[in-house]
Amino acid sequence: MRTIEYIEDFTSWAEEFNFYIPVNIRFSETDMYGHMNNVSPFIYFEEARIAYLQSLGLFNDFSNKEEGIIVADLQCNYIKQLFFGDEVQVHVKTKEVGNSSFDIHYMVTKGNFDVVLTARGRLVYIDANLGKSKPLTEDMKEKLLGRTFSKTQVKPTP
Amino acid sequence: MRTIEYIEDFTSWAEEFNFYIPVNIRFSETDMYGHMNNVSPFIYFEEARIAYLQSLGLFNDFSNKEEGIIVADLQCNYIKQLFFGDEVQVHVKTKEVGNSSFDIHYMVTKGNFDVVLTARGRLVYIDANLGKSKPLTEDMKEKLLGRTFSKTQVKPTP
Amino acid sequence: MRTIEYIEDFTSWAEEFNFYIPVNIRFSETDMYGHMNNVSPFIYFEEARIAYLQSLGLFNDFSNKEEGIIVADLQCNYIKQLFFGDEVQVHVKTKEVGNSSFDIHYMVTKGNFDVVLTARGRLVYIDANLGKSKPLTEDMKEKLLGRTFSKTQVKPTP
Amino acid sequence: MRTIEYIEDFTSWAEEFNFYIPVNIRFSETDMYGHMNNVSPFIYFEEARIAYLQSLGLFNDFSNKEEGIIVADLQCNYIKQLFFGDEVQVHVKTKEVGNSSFDIHYMVTKGNFDVVLTARGRLVYIDANLGKSKPLTEDMKEKLLGRTFSKTQVKPTP
Repeated sequence: MRTIEYIEDFTSWAEEFNFYIPVNIRFSETDMYGHMNNVSPFIYFEEARIAYLQSLGLFNDFSNKEEGIIVADLQCNYIKQLFFGDEVQVHVKTKEVGNSSFDIHYMVTKGNFDVVLTARGRLVYIDANLGKSKPLTEDMKEKLLGRTFSKTQVKPTP
Repeated sequence: MRTIEYIEDFTSWAEEFNFYIPVNIRFSETDMYGHMNNVSPFIYFEEARIAYLQSLGLFNDFSNKEEGIIVADLQCNYIKQLFFGDEVQVHVKTKEVGNSSFDIHYMVTKGNFDVVLTARGRLVYIDANLGKSKPLTEDMKEKLLGRTFSKTQVKPTP
Repeated sequence: MRTIEYIEDFTSWAEEFNFYIPVNIRFSETDMYGHMNNVSPFIYFEEARIAYLQSLGLFNDFSNKEEGIIVADLQCNYIKQLFFGDEVQVHVKTKEVGNSSFDIHYMVTKGNFDVVLTARGRLVYIDANLGKSKPLTEDMKEKLLGRTFSKTQVKPTP
Repeated sequence: MRTIEYIEDFTSWAEEFNFYIPVNIRFSETDMYGHMNNVSPFIYFEEARIAYLQSLGLFNDFSNKEEGIIVADLQCNYIKQLFFGDEVQVHVKTKEVGNSSFDIHYMVTKGNFDVVLTARGRLVYIDANLGKSKPLTEDMKEKLLGRTFSKTQVKPTP
């Protein structure tokens, strides 16, 4: 596999995931090339990211619209092609927690943990009225980091 | 062409349109069958419907969220296939104006007015707080009906 | 509930369904009005239709591209609004089997069988080379009709 | 503006673009947060990338399916929010041409060249039968590099 700048050691990177959602590749998500359209993974990442933040109690908090978590960037590496009907797992983890932002990493596996997509993206905690970043609370940091301690059963392909 | 229940006489029906937006079929809107996915026309109808209502001054009115125009039903007939890169015209007109709702009809043409899709749908004027329909004002009715008087240059295929 | 032209008696219509797929409303399928975009149901209908045809052994048959089943029309009635995270059931059944085409009906329910969407559409069996309809085989008709005999547990809302 | 790793000097980077397509943000591309969904830019990048490759005569070449150009990775930075009805320009250029792959950069501007999104992605020239990369021909390299010489009128925001 090609070098991916946000993955130092692939095996340990893959082992750190311990949350995922299942996704089926839909017919409308294929294109005339016969396989999954390149846009589709970003739909799955969004679903997985929200489910992950919800599991940490960090999604519903922002319904007051005074503050929010926004996407600063997104980056996806296409390792293997996917097809209609493929059932995949979209794994999510927190990678780097900064003062007012953090990285979310994604790994999409198929079948017996065959890695088909990897991705990452920065999320920023913002004051919705000012439109500016604000420091993550200690509680938020704990929730984000708490998820990364336990081990996962993922057996990544080399 | 097959009988379509909402079109009595096709020639006169086609001639009544005098508003359209251009749309290009996108790559991500194709599917593994090699042509435009069946879901995509409803994206185009929405764009055309909003542009049409905006042209009548009937879209921005509802930003107060006290009232709105909602879609009650949608119905599409697929006449001919479309492919990536096809440039089409999505024509829109008002068909039947009732007490609190009205029908919007759609005709999608390609090239020299080759009809590829026809559609219709009911829109209902609602009180957003009560979640119930409310009577269209006289001003709204005038705007909706005004559009249907002038003639169009559309030359429909038989 | 408003009259829907393709539903004679709602209770018996709803009881005839005995196949469904679960669908979660995705974040990207909402729009700026805060709820599910009007285009999204057609994505779900496609998924449900294919899963249904697959369950009857009528989807994979067409990989030879000599023949196919295409969508002639689609029609959706929006009964109640849906929101991000809503878990729904998309029910499918065959309604009318003709010489070379048949109707598929759809019912989307939420929670304890609260009906939020109804829909129907005609599918046509075609000779892919000629681009013309061809008669359904007896085997196909049997498979399509077989599904409609057993009873469903759906308890429709009035 | 935050540092973006694939942009050394923003002004000169922005000035190198000399191809773009116009895109309107569609209603169905917004989400419940009221603005453009994070998935949508990848739809626009795909349209712009294909239009750009077509303009170079590098898209139609692959209809024989013996060879193709595939997306290896995609990376987007969200600078400013976009809303329904926004009219933007999606600029495209070739950045680095390697042996069998090249980088495409994207800049999305609004109004008087206000930069709202930046992006990049690697494309790989492949032998479709072997599923492996193959060297770009001299003709392809010339076409890709030819586009980057002339100056653009883009006035980037600092």
